[in-house]
Amino acid sequence: MTEKKQKLTIPPERAQPWQKVGEGAIRYENPWMRVIEDEVLTPSGAPARYGRVEAPDAAAVLALTEDEEVVLIGQHRYPVNAYSWEIIAGGFEANEAPISAAKRELREEAGIIAGALFPLGSPFHLVNARSSEVCHIFVATGLEFGASDPDETELLTVKKVPLSQFYAMIDEGEIMDSITIVAALRYRNLFSERKEL
Amino acid sequence: MTEKKQKLTIPPERAQPWQKVGEGAIRYENPWMRVIEDEVLTPSGAPARYGRVEAPDAAAVLALTEDEEVVLIGQHRYPVNAYSWEIIAGGFEANEAPISAAKRELREEAGIIAGALFPLGSPFHLVNARSSEVCHIFVATGLEFGASDPDETELLTVKKVPLSQFYAMIDEGEIMDSITIVAALRYRNLFSERKEL
Repeated sequence: MTEKKQKLTIPPERAQPWQKVGEGAIRYENPWMRVIEDEVLTPSGAPARYGRVEAPDAAAVLALTEDEEVVLIGQHRYPVNAYSWEIIAGGFEANEAPISAAKRELREEAGIIAGALFPLGSPFHLVNARSSEVCHIFVATGLEFGASDPDETELLTVKKVPLSQFYAMIDEGEIMDSITIVAALRYRNLFSERKEL
Repeated sequence: MTEKKQKLTIPPERAQPWQKVGEGAIRYENPWMRVIEDEVLTPSGAPARYGRVEAPDAAAVLALTEDEEVVLIGQHRYPVNAYSWEIIAGGFEANEAPISAAKRELREEAGIIAGALFPLGSPFHLVNARSSEVCHIFVATGLEFGASDPDETELLTVKKVPLSQFYAMIDEGEIMDSITIVAALRYRNLFSERKEL
């Protein structure tokens, strides 16, 4: 392992990080996110402002039927102006455990009660340069299908696609959602046949 | 493939999507992002506002040495208050091609000129509920190392880790950056030995 230092006499990982020096001011707020601007010192000690997005953490679920079909949720995503097929996912507040949020989203978005639910890899940051938002991914099996109860701002379609088709949608760029891509790649890496080159 | 309709007589993918009805107002702006609030109609036709984040698209590069080492960039990420090891990545504007941005980031962040550069999978959306930001990932080989030229707001460390160690950092949750995770999983799925369970 080699390291190269840049414009520093001590390695940055041991140098002063960005430091918050003033209480953050809310610059924008809606029901799904807010923008906070903190007064900070940069790693080199200069005063600056750091604008960051606060949003709830996310729980996502790769729900698999006994026939190895994946449950996908379809919805129009306004910011990208496209209809998007994704695994079941939603935000949750700090007073809810990630696995509880996953169970709730299964029920609300697709009317599913899962027999088993386990984490698919470690939690990760969606955009660490801009937000502290963490995403937790789970796999659900032993699915029982009942009535769903989506948020009123959601207009969702639920469909099941074979795992092989799900992977093809990822490989061909038909699915562009980061969370769904991470879930598919992790599951494939752990449990599925390798792609032939 | 089965579909279930929810509170609709036509499937949502053929229903009216979210519609922009008024010019977006800038609610927040800094050098790295801005928040735009559009006047919209929801898919069910109700008037509403949709606040979204505008940020440059991102180009990221999994740079591999002849010895199968991955070049990682370390920096303190303020929003998550953690030191983060990531593949080379950065934003770029619409007048720059993704592959040109990848070459530029290689040179600026790590002083690297690559002999070959190819796309690693399709572009994807980092957070499609909030932003149209697209990420493009490349693999770089045939690396020549020279002097780097990072932005003055960046305080970077460059190191090389063996591919196996890179995968372990992903599996163990030491690396939490979504872009780096997608790159690692895609590369591993295509080119590396499977993980033994």
